Amino acid sequence: MAVCHLSIFPEMAGICQRTLKLNIALRHLTLHRTLSSTLAARLSPGDLCSSFLPSGSWQFGSSVCKLHTDADGPRLSPAAPPDRLPFSRVTQEDLAFFRNVLPGRTITDPDLLRSSNVDWLKSVKGSGEVLLRPQTTEEVSQILRYCNSHNLAVNPQGGNTGLVGGSVPVYDEIILSTALMNNVLAFDSISGILTCQAGCVLENLSHYLEESDYIMPLDLGAKGSCHIGGNVATNAGGLRLLRYGSLHGTVLGLEVVLADGRVLDCLATLRKDNTGYDLKQLFIGSEGTLGVITAVSILCPRKPKSVNVVFLGCETFEQLLKTFQLCKGMLGEILSAFEFLDSECMTLLNTHLKLPNPISDCPFYVVIETSGSDQTHDGEKLHNFLEEAMSSLLVTDGTVATEESKIKALWSMRERVTEALTHDGFTYKYDISLPVERIYQLVTDMRQHLGDRAKSVVGYGHVGDGNLHLNITSPAKDPALLAAIEPFVYEWTASCKGSISAEHGLGLKKRNYIYYSKPSQAVALMSDIKAMLDPKGILNPYKTLPDNPK
Amino acid sequence: MAVCHLSIFPEMAGICQRTLKLNIALRHLTLHRTLSSTLAARLSPGDLCSSFLPSGSWQFGSSVCKLHTDADGPRLSPAAPPDRLPFSRVTQEDLAFFRNVLPGRTITDPDLLRSSNVDWLKSVKGSGEVLLRPQTTEEVSQILRYCNSHNLAVNPQGGNTGLVGGSVPVYDEIILSTALMNNVLAFDSISGILTCQAGCVLENLSHYLEESDYIMPLDLGAKGSCHIGGNVATNAGGLRLLRYGSLHGTVLGLEVVLADGRVLDCLATLRKDNTGYDLKQLFIGSEGTLGVITAVSILCPRKPKSVNVVFLGCETFEQLLKTFQLCKGMLGEILSAFEFLDSECMTLLNTHLKLPNPISDCPFYVVIETSGSDQTHDGEKLHNFLEEAMSSLLVTDGTVATEESKIKALWSMRERVTEALTHDGFTYKYDISLPVERIYQLVTDMRQHLGDRAKSVVGYGHVGDGNLHLNITSPAKDPALLAAIEPFVYEWTASCKGSISAEHGLGLKKRNYIYYSKPSQAVALMSDIKAMLDPKGILNPYKTLPDNPK
Repeated sequence: MAVCHLSIFPEMAGICQRTLKLNIALRHLTLHRTLSSTLAARLSPGDLCSSFLPSGSWQFGSSVCKLHTDADGPRLSPAAPPDRLPFSRVTQEDLAFFRNVLPGRTITDPDLLRSSNVDWLKSVKGSGEVLLRPQTTEEVSQILRYCNSHNLAVNPQGGNTGLVGGSVPVYDEIILSTALMNNVLAFDSISGILTCQAGCVLENLSHYLEESDYIMPLDLGAKGSCHIGGNVATNAGGLRLLRYGSLHGTVLGLEVVLADGRVLDCLATLRKDNTGYDLKQLFIGSEGTLGVITAVSILCPRKPKSVNVVFLGCETFEQLLKTFQLCKGMLGEILSAFEFLDSECMTLLNTHLKLPNPISDCPFYVVIETSGSDQTHDGEKLHNFLEEAMSSLLVTDGTVATEESKIKALWSMRERVTEALTHDGFTYKYDISLPVERIYQLVTDMRQHLGDRAKSVVGYGHVGDGNLHLNITSPAKDPALLAAIEPFVYEWTASCKGSISAEHGLGLKKRNYIYYSKPSQAVALMSDIKAMLDPKGILNPYKTLPDNPK
Repeated sequence: MAVCHLSIFPEMAGICQRTLKLNIALRHLTLHRTLSSTLAARLSPGDLCSSFLPSGSWQFGSSVCKLHTDADGPRLSPAAPPDRLPFSRVTQEDLAFFRNVLPGRTITDPDLLRSSNVDWLKSVKGSGEVLLRPQTTEEVSQILRYCNSHNLAVNPQGGNTGLVGGSVPVYDEIILSTALMNNVLAFDSISGILTCQAGCVLENLSHYLEESDYIMPLDLGAKGSCHIGGNVATNAGGLRLLRYGSLHGTVLGLEVVLADGRVLDCLATLRKDNTGYDLKQLFIGSEGTLGVITAVSILCPRKPKSVNVVFLGCETFEQLLKTFQLCKGMLGEILSAFEFLDSECMTLLNTHLKLPNPISDCPFYVVIETSGSDQTHDGEKLHNFLEEAMSSLLVTDGTVATEESKIKALWSMRERVTEALTHDGFTYKYDISLPVERIYQLVTDMRQHLGDRAKSVVGYGHVGDGNLHLNITSPAKDPALLAAIEPFVYEWTASCKGSISAEHGLGLKKRNYIYYSKPSQAVALMSDIKAMLDPKGILNPYKTLPDNPK
């Protein structure tokens, strides 16, 4: 990999040499052109799906029907689905209605339904027999009005890239796909406000905006497949949250169809609007359980003129945190990402994807991205930061990529960890928010707690957001290992007042763990809101809320 | 006023001269020290209150009991309060309970109650007979549980700096003040997350954070008096929204006491938490009608190392908008404010406050602030932007302030317009969000519409947020003038899909105008939420929601 390479050694005697090499690298840095467009080419789940997942590995409820054991004998895992609720089953009359509303877009062919019934991880599989593909809000409204009055359960589905079993049916829910609702409705190049239908693919929106020198305020690995409506419904985080904040701040308006078919038009395109309660907020992160998002307006940042990426190595997580602090102070307003992976992740990348380590072996690796409006200024800030980080011995090795392809290569070291994990065995995935100074302690404690029961225990994620992705693999599904992981991981997180789902949501798999992060008063109020907006409970049943609220 | 002065002329021949003067100014620019601390000294309503409002001008319902006339004869203005609802009246037994819970902090002395019964504009006056000053969440819980079970209405009150009659009783509601809930609970200097009680004064929090090199993500003229709880309850916007976004993004957690006394603990201190619905969002901007906010956690930005302010003049609003576009492109990530005022505002500043115009007379004036991490880089960016703005003839005059006192003086040209207006006569105030390219058209149209019926029609506000403050003065209260303004202003705004309250909220005065910005389906859902959370309607009655939802 032809990146500018800095062999940096921790010894004092190496500082001059390091600085020299750094300066060579930084000379390149000030010459390179705008590189942000390369980021659009990162790997998406859609790309991954066909390449690395074994075909024919349908595992109905594979990760949701695990058995726990206690004094009373075996019991179902809290992740297992509850019994099917007494919704109606789809009849020929229902199909006739749907075909009348959606001619040619009411799918019942089992072959065509297969991919909509299974999640991206292939860990949850439903048995939906109808896939509806509306094109307009009015069609969604007609469908929901009918389903609500006929007691038919509905599973709203965007790009189906979720990781918690929230985007596929659990039983025979009707799948309501936003895939054909993919029109940009308006873009105001003065304000940067984009309005579009819910089914627009995130990457397509990024390409659309690039022509006007804007970018989407969110970016994530699934960008090639995920829909903006799904992003909003799950309050997706991703790689730009550190810089542009959450969707609760950047989404300006939503159009939502409620369970009974009423259309709630909150599709404002204003940065400020204090006329009554901000209803759209309710639907951001509600995982399709309160309404179906049909259109979104969102505030988009200007495309940065200068993007730089560096890959650094640290000896300890404490040094990594100090590097983060230094970085926030010295890079300030141009810092756009501060991500990390541990040496176990690097081993998986080397072993399973044949990705070579771009620097020398270190216990921890950091990916830092800057995005700014002046290439010279950004280069100088980065130079100063790197000099300080080196002379303070916070980083022990590092490399700066100055060309699009090399930036992409560095980013892939962080972004392809998820893919590498799928090759390592059965993976237990956890997405944890913690006070930033605690995030790696959980990995260390888990490793010690599990001993040799796990194949790999790895940590990576968004340091800037205090968001750890903890993954534990084993050669095959292992109920005993799961029993050792859970509830340990949730109790550990709760003891630090962390969140047991930072950005993935609760979906089917995590719904019953909500009390580790939310008090019962809050969950009770959530249930009240659900009952108010969807009294028959037809929208995405078995998801987000616990089976039996306290 | 000893600011660096640039006499800039539109003629091409003047460009060299202008550039020379600009360079002199920019030389100063690169020498000045961090100036952000001066911003903390801006005038607050608390300061203004005693100095420029005529004493003894109690005007019970002065702006809310205006009469409209139509074919059926006189009718009450939609802003007028409805009849008192059948809440209980406070008895001696009630007082005994309150005194037991809040010994020495249950106020009934009419003299001590006076300032809590009247709003900052002195336009709405209630007749509350009890002021409660809890110190803890548990005390708030006890009070609300009691009031709810005894059918006593409650008016939650922060700094009482609101402009729509939302913060004072309409009749005899019990005033529940957060003034003694003013402790900082925690500050994490790694993450920048502050947790504090709701009654902390915004300016005090700013001073507290400054010691750790952080700032609050919001700043507004009322900072010396307003409480953070009130800021959140009203979703305050202010001067930093352009840079740091709205409170829906920066508030990470809330503790709220519900109408029946239940404590809802959503006081998370995490940047990411997708465990269930984001309940705290419901209370941001609900104006105390859904619950009483008792504590807030909020993400604070690092204190910028370099702050610059320029004051520019433009010949047309179109040039001002082009300047804004240029500015967004060239100042990029360091732009932290883009505010404007028109020449009529300048006249009021000159006439009533004796503030001299720091540049030559222009139809429009702009205040631009940059905040960054590198003084040299910021100075260069500003230099390049100003050169381009001048050579493109977008700006016709300008001045750069490089010292704290001068920065403060330039900011006061924007911030003291509200004060100047109070000296010009009776003021009809409107706080409008519009697509940014339309914001000044409303002022022009209103001026033409009113002809010589108004004394002054002025426009100023936050260009960066598409937020216009439209103010119309007359020598005295003038029902005929009001009838000419309303509903004209609301219909004009609705025709552009704007918001009739960008940042001030609806409170008492604007509640019945909600349909100009929100469809009836949305208002109906708001009423459902109110009924769910506060079934007896004891919390801040007569506010935010319309009297008779459609």
